[in-house]
Amino acid sequence: MSERSFKPLSGKVLPRFAGIPTFMRLPYIELDDLDEVDIGLIGVPWDGGTTNRAGARHGPRQMRDLSTMMRSIHHVTGIKPFDIANSADLGDTPVNPIDLMDTLGRVEEFYRKVHAAGVMPLTAGGDHLITLPIMRAIATDGPLGMVHFDAHTDTWDRYFGDCKFTHGTPFRRAIEEGILDPKRTIQIGIRGALYGDADNEWGEAQGIRVVMIEEFFDLGVEKVIEEARRVVGDGPTYISFDVDGLDPVYAPGTGTPEIGGFSTHEAQRMVRGLRGLNLVGGDVVEVAPPFDPSGATALVGVTMMFEILCLLAEQAAARRS
Amino acid sequence: MSERSFKPLSGKVLPRFAGIPTFMRLPYIELDDLDEVDIGLIGVPWDGGTTNRAGARHGPRQMRDLSTMMRSIHHVTGIKPFDIANSADLGDTPVNPIDLMDTLGRVEEFYRKVHAAGVMPLTAGGDHLITLPIMRAIATDGPLGMVHFDAHTDTWDRYFGDCKFTHGTPFRRAIEEGILDPKRTIQIGIRGALYGDADNEWGEAQGIRVVMIEEFFDLGVEKVIEEARRVVGDGPTYISFDVDGLDPVYAPGTGTPEIGGFSTHEAQRMVRGLRGLNLVGGDVVEVAPPFDPSGATALVGVTMMFEILCLLAEQAAARRS
Amino acid sequence: MSERSFKPLSGKVLPRFAGIPTFMRLPYIELDDLDEVDIGLIGVPWDGGTTNRAGARHGPRQMRDLSTMMRSIHHVTGIKPFDIANSADLGDTPVNPIDLMDTLGRVEEFYRKVHAAGVMPLTAGGDHLITLPIMRAIATDGPLGMVHFDAHTDTWDRYFGDCKFTHGTPFRRAIEEGILDPKRTIQIGIRGALYGDADNEWGEAQGIRVVMIEEFFDLGVEKVIEEARRVVGDGPTYISFDVDGLDPVYAPGTGTPEIGGFSTHEAQRMVRGLRGLNLVGGDVVEVAPPFDPSGATALVGVTMMFEILCLLAEQAAARRS
Amino acid sequence: MSERSFKPLSGKVLPRFAGIPTFMRLPYIELDDLDEVDIGLIGVPWDGGTTNRAGARHGPRQMRDLSTMMRSIHHVTGIKPFDIANSADLGDTPVNPIDLMDTLGRVEEFYRKVHAAGVMPLTAGGDHLITLPIMRAIATDGPLGMVHFDAHTDTWDRYFGDCKFTHGTPFRRAIEEGILDPKRTIQIGIRGALYGDADNEWGEAQGIRVVMIEEFFDLGVEKVIEEARRVVGDGPTYISFDVDGLDPVYAPGTGTPEIGGFSTHEAQRMVRGLRGLNLVGGDVVEVAPPFDPSGATALVGVTMMFEILCLLAEQAAARRS
Amino acid sequence: MSERSFKPLSGKVLPRFAGIPTFMRLPYIELDDLDEVDIGLIGVPWDGGTTNRAGARHGPRQMRDLSTMMRSIHHVTGIKPFDIANSADLGDTPVNPIDLMDTLGRVEEFYRKVHAAGVMPLTAGGDHLITLPIMRAIATDGPLGMVHFDAHTDTWDRYFGDCKFTHGTPFRRAIEEGILDPKRTIQIGIRGALYGDADNEWGEAQGIRVVMIEEFFDLGVEKVIEEARRVVGDGPTYISFDVDGLDPVYAPGTGTPEIGGFSTHEAQRMVRGLRGLNLVGGDVVEVAPPFDPSGATALVGVTMMFEILCLLAEQAAARRS
Amino acid sequence: MSERSFKPLSGKVLPRFAGIPTFMRLPYIELDDLDEVDIGLIGVPWDGGTTNRAGARHGPRQMRDLSTMMRSIHHVTGIKPFDIANSADLGDTPVNPIDLMDTLGRVEEFYRKVHAAGVMPLTAGGDHLITLPIMRAIATDGPLGMVHFDAHTDTWDRYFGDCKFTHGTPFRRAIEEGILDPKRTIQIGIRGALYGDADNEWGEAQGIRVVMIEEFFDLGVEKVIEEARRVVGDGPTYISFDVDGLDPVYAPGTGTPEIGGFSTHEAQRMVRGLRGLNLVGGDVVEVAPPFDPSGATALVGVTMMFEILCLLAEQAAARRS
Repeated sequence: MSERSFKPLSGKVLPRFAGIPTFMRLPYIELDDLDEVDIGLIGVPWDGGTTNRAGARHGPRQMRDLSTMMRSIHHVTGIKPFDIANSADLGDTPVNPIDLMDTLGRVEEFYRKVHAAGVMPLTAGGDHLITLPIMRAIATDGPLGMVHFDAHTDTWDRYFGDCKFTHGTPFRRAIEEGILDPKRTIQIGIRGALYGDADNEWGEAQGIRVVMIEEFFDLGVEKVIEEARRVVGDGPTYISFDVDGLDPVYAPGTGTPEIGGFSTHEAQRMVRGLRGLNLVGGDVVEVAPPFDPSGATALVGVTMMFEILCLLAEQAAARRS
Repeated sequence: MSERSFKPLSGKVLPRFAGIPTFMRLPYIELDDLDEVDIGLIGVPWDGGTTNRAGARHGPRQMRDLSTMMRSIHHVTGIKPFDIANSADLGDTPVNPIDLMDTLGRVEEFYRKVHAAGVMPLTAGGDHLITLPIMRAIATDGPLGMVHFDAHTDTWDRYFGDCKFTHGTPFRRAIEEGILDPKRTIQIGIRGALYGDADNEWGEAQGIRVVMIEEFFDLGVEKVIEEARRVVGDGPTYISFDVDGLDPVYAPGTGTPEIGGFSTHEAQRMVRGLRGLNLVGGDVVEVAPPFDPSGATALVGVTMMFEILCLLAEQAAARRS
Repeated sequence: MSERSFKPLSGKVLPRFAGIPTFMRLPYIELDDLDEVDIGLIGVPWDGGTTNRAGARHGPRQMRDLSTMMRSIHHVTGIKPFDIANSADLGDTPVNPIDLMDTLGRVEEFYRKVHAAGVMPLTAGGDHLITLPIMRAIATDGPLGMVHFDAHTDTWDRYFGDCKFTHGTPFRRAIEEGILDPKRTIQIGIRGALYGDADNEWGEAQGIRVVMIEEFFDLGVEKVIEEARRVVGDGPTYISFDVDGLDPVYAPGTGTPEIGGFSTHEAQRMVRGLRGLNLVGGDVVEVAPPFDPSGATALVGVTMMFEILCLLAEQAAARRS
Repeated sequence: MSERSFKPLSGKVLPRFAGIPTFMRLPYIELDDLDEVDIGLIGVPWDGGTTNRAGARHGPRQMRDLSTMMRSIHHVTGIKPFDIANSADLGDTPVNPIDLMDTLGRVEEFYRKVHAAGVMPLTAGGDHLITLPIMRAIATDGPLGMVHFDAHTDTWDRYFGDCKFTHGTPFRRAIEEGILDPKRTIQIGIRGALYGDADNEWGEAQGIRVVMIEEFFDLGVEKVIEEARRVVGDGPTYISFDVDGLDPVYAPGTGTPEIGGFSTHEAQRMVRGLRGLNLVGGDVVEVAPPFDPSGATALVGVTMMFEILCLLAEQAAARRS
Repeated sequence: MSERSFKPLSGKVLPRFAGIPTFMRLPYIELDDLDEVDIGLIGVPWDGGTTNRAGARHGPRQMRDLSTMMRSIHHVTGIKPFDIANSADLGDTPVNPIDLMDTLGRVEEFYRKVHAAGVMPLTAGGDHLITLPIMRAIATDGPLGMVHFDAHTDTWDRYFGDCKFTHGTPFRRAIEEGILDPKRTIQIGIRGALYGDADNEWGEAQGIRVVMIEEFFDLGVEKVIEEARRVVGDGPTYISFDVDGLDPVYAPGTGTPEIGGFSTHEAQRMVRGLRGLNLVGGDVVEVAPPFDPSGATALVGVTMMFEILCLLAEQAAARRS
Repeated sequence: MSERSFKPLSGKVLPRFAGIPTFMRLPYIELDDLDEVDIGLIGVPWDGGTTNRAGARHGPRQMRDLSTMMRSIHHVTGIKPFDIANSADLGDTPVNPIDLMDTLGRVEEFYRKVHAAGVMPLTAGGDHLITLPIMRAIATDGPLGMVHFDAHTDTWDRYFGDCKFTHGTPFRRAIEEGILDPKRTIQIGIRGALYGDADNEWGEAQGIRVVMIEEFFDLGVEKVIEEARRVVGDGPTYISFDVDGLDPVYAPGTGTPEIGGFSTHEAQRMVRGLRGLNLVGGDVVEVAPPFDPSGATALVGVTMMFEILCLLAEQAAARRS
């Protein structure tokens, strides 16, 4: 029987600014030692799929740093994630900053091991292309549903001639590969001028439910939650949170900001509204620290990770019992 | 027949951070070559009318830089401004950073040429005093109406003894000179403590409709749009957008921030609500990059320029046909 | 009869960036010369009670700097605080950055003199522990009521073993000492994950009315104002405004930010809603300039001080007449 | 007999970050009360003569802030400036940010009063044009000599057509007006590409000794000091220190940086080498805080003011005795 | 006969902060119009070869911005580059931020056109890998010599397994490809801890003259210049200036800073010491604006470009005559 | 026999920005597992002894972050510290941010365990007071000698009345306690104006060799090294490196900057000059990240740690053999 602790170190015992920063002050566990772990917090420090301003390669480190500001009981739901499930920092995946295809392989391989060990992944990106290899690794039993917060649909086709894999294309590829179910996908917060007429058409033609930011504000948070729950149903579902879905004042540290987004409070309410869904993992991506040395964006990112973690922990607890 | 292209370079062909930054990646056209141009994007790099913290002289350059983040189709209205009208970057006007009156003359002369060529100006300031010489140049057929977004009325009278021309006085001067019609003027977002009892009285006595920020929040965006449309009617109308009308979290890079303003989303909705008005030009002023090296304020500024551009393009298309 | 002026210097006479920065450009008055003073603006440059990220020791200086942006007439209520009451900058209290208990004594002693002279204090902190010695000095006629804006209840018990005095504990101590009446205390904006189950229980068991941020958004500003007025009643009441009650986008310069708070506009409305209460003082605390060199947080802080000042001035005027 | 203290408050009594920031924590004295004052520290918060990047209007405030880091005994010379002379903060001069000629008059008038009271001025600018009205006020007994540290000669003639008064022209004007003796003027650190062939020729034709930065490095500090002492001789001499004479790494907060300058240590040694000269005043100009929010440039600026103050104090002491 | 002007716009006519920023305010010329051009200033906005902190993709834009601070006559050599040769901004090369090999091809193709037109390239990077395709394009008549300023030799072999092309390997590849002559190559400023024993051995075995930073300080600038001239002789020579050769205080905006480098003044002297060599082009690389929003590093970069431009202009003038 | 690796992870295998940041990418080892460890890298995240601007509590975290930029072979001495000695990250000591005396005890206790295990400590502070408890723990066999790099002597006596323990007093206390031998102590770089006549006298009276910065520049690095070696002799010696000894341009992120210091290159040479001394530990203190979010100061700090580590590793290797 294990005596290992999966509880984070309290800020009332050691100040939050002290100590080696693992995600949420959890223990670091290596990949060959995952037996007791329910949820793995993982960094993918890579932005090689970025067509515009890079920097998300530094996201995991700054999110780890700010994650020591987290505490342990959710103030609204009362969920105690660290009491009901074992979470650990699994470190960063291998990446290759100068080779996109090589990186996709390395990341997928890492997540295959995590998935094989029965561990649910909660990821800190990295640019949004990283969700593709994660889905390749965990969608082993059929396509996933997805609740996707973002300013962009990320279902564009090609860039710079014939480049198929960029942070603007992951979900088009995922749908093509059959690992993402467009009919169980909802995208919330989409906005910003378009490149071409067909920008949003392809996805909607596949059956994606797109909630433009204007519709979001018109409907309100509660109705959007209902819509999200309706779309994804009770199948296995992934939460992907691109911080540029937020208004840039909440997340200046990102590569492709679009003005006029939702607030952190609204984001928190939406994530909480997904409680009880059949969740299989989540990520927070596109935190780019060079554009926000203050760390404010990273704090937002890790707080959203904590929100998602609470939901995953309940799922893990339910599955275990 | 011209073969010149007035289309912006796409970020899917050349990354947005590449290339010499003209406004929205449009061609640069000289003043003596305006035949094909419908809308001229112009910078006025000057802040010599600033009574407080300067820096707006650097506005046009940083807005050009961030303007390369724009794309070409409006995601709500579907307007394709670059398809329906020819827009170009006309460069910056001459300015004299150490002589206010000389600058007013130089700016006015530049806009007279633009106006004479039948080109609608869309300006990046510069402090708010620059709207005065612009109006002098384009109000050739009688006083203009104005939809004015701002935290301040800019209808003060004098500063530092007997100074009549500052960024706090342009609209008092414009009304006195008969180039701005106070009865067709609406000011939205006004707030902040006052210098004296009479601060807002003069303007209201002239017939200006002042929507204080509190009234704005009480009415809501839709009602404020209605009110704006009612006030300006179908006469020739100018849009002047001072970024300090926004809450400072959206526009920290400005000289005279006042807390408690409207959001970018609200601003976008209001500008969209002006669609179809008889618009003759517009400006976005008071972006002061030294107070926001991140460029976030400039991004807001150029996105608002894009919103205004869409409306001007429809007007230009209508006039041409 | 005094000929001393208690009017701030106008920004239309000398630019706001000029001159030695006293609070709101008021005269500096020494403690032994308070006869004519109704309201004293005081800095407490100290953060020795901070368990996490320090920096609030620099708050008073940066708030003085930004306070020169204030003007003199409230744009909504029309209150002219400098016409109806005499306000002055009383300087900073003595502090000892390396000795917590010594500082508590020095601060209390300073405020005892202020209070003895019949001057109402309006304080710029400093971390939130400073409210404890202030209350010790001014609650000479029984416990105070309090309207408390904050992300945290600050009613924790102990830190780092057995430390009783930190910026997380002032109101527990104040209640224990009988200088704060929990039944006349309301806390608005509370949020953020908790350390333990009992975090908020102690306070509520004492009778504190806690308005969590979710309840705040559900009720709306007007209902929260009503609730605050109901709770504090007509007894002597103190306003304590921790800038981390605001969403961090409005107040990034603070030590313990929690995402998802209220806005400055909402804060302004709430404070205005306290008009006419039996107010005895107020403070704005936890402005930490090293985390916001731009001064935006300090500008928010001093504008909130101006809002509170308007209310105190009316009280002072009423008492005098 | 006076009992007023002219000693700065010690950082071992009240921490340096506490208190209203006057220059070097000295008392503030009004212009009509200068009887006991030997040296007046004065701010000129104005940059209306700036042809390029403005911001020096904020110099005096940030220098006052950082000046509280100063102590009281020079660690090399042992001079105790506050023991041997009475120094005070005389506040900022009136300025008009939108009217150059008006400002020149206001500044001159202020310094005429200071000079008439027998007080030696030590000024924090402001852009370099402010030295002109200062010299007009204090060169009442014939032209001054000058030791001038700068990257630029500031003897250009005209800008933007026919503008004679800019921060690039003060010393040409001063020589023309007969208040600066070119043959007793030395300029140290000059560098940077030129506008035209004649840029440096006019000054040298007048007899100014120009030490280009290359010659500075070749000669070394000691020889440059000798040369400076030889040039100015024993006539009345002014020290003008433009922070852009320093390499920009030491003074990033300035409007017209030129790479490849001297260091602060070299600057300190040079100023110390002027000990015993017949000094009548000095200034430190072109500190532009918006380009260096960290305050590092202002710290350099006020430390150079302290170095100059030590020399002025010895002169004041000598004259008094 | 052409009437086109190749003179930069003067800062005494239009302020430096005004106007669309081309390199040094020169005309923008397209690739098919190079007949009159001697020297082409080119940006390569790409950092896809960066193994560590990226950001140099933004270098050309910020360097263009700061390049408007340049003037037109060298203050030491008296060279008037714009009088003796025609220089123009040729814009940015095409790049592909997500495909390294594609980008190498696009860049090389661009430079082949420039070279074919007889234009000498002066490049603003971009990471250091871009020098490889430039050399491939211009070393058409045999291997080049090189004076290389850098903290790193950039002759490593492989990264992340088997990646041959990174910003740490360009000169190993160039030597292998026969386009760089190691015996006519000198590297100045090398320092920083090593990965392995053989790090510097390969290059030295090829015959590269490595001047470690310690040797640089021991020899002094003049001796290093002599050594550089001796090594490269009178064959065609390229100057490659990586800003991380400078001490990080002069160039904080770079991806791989190493403390303890040379100064800008020393760098300027070294480049000037290369006057008269048989130069065929040059570059300034690794300016990464996200790590220096102030633009100070970019200012250093463009000033070094100006220094190199003066030398190239003399070569161009000599060849033409 | 152990199979544990004490080699840092290479940046050519996993990019430097990836992974949980331990000091120099070394393994983290707990205090009860020190058998194989020769050198322990330890953080003391505390600044409770700071009399002025705090922030050094964040030093260890940012230094760990930047330490991943280190490599493994010294480029001048050729020392391979990780090959000749086992180094590990021992984490941060317990600290109490609100209780000075409690912290001194916690730190001392931690170091007593380290020392008892035969491990040499290399510390990242933290303010300079932390050197006192470290010395208390390791000076078990008599007083230590010290080579002390700093702008301040840190031998003041009392602050704010009667406070004996601040970051300005550690070495006075250490000498009084008999754990530091003043006659074997040398202080290098001292400068800055003084509080009182006796500021430097006490230390010199005890026999400390003070090398003021002026003497440093006059003597040159080599002579200062000789002097340091002469002073400390062959007794046990500690290296204490306060980053404010450097000129502030190299270390802006510190609480009490003094202009006019030495350079990083000079610092590196001085530390290298201490090779072969009988060293027992070292520290780098006063890195205050809030004043340098760029991390440049932390990079300097960890590079100096690497320099010291090379020397300690040779000592450890020598002792082991």
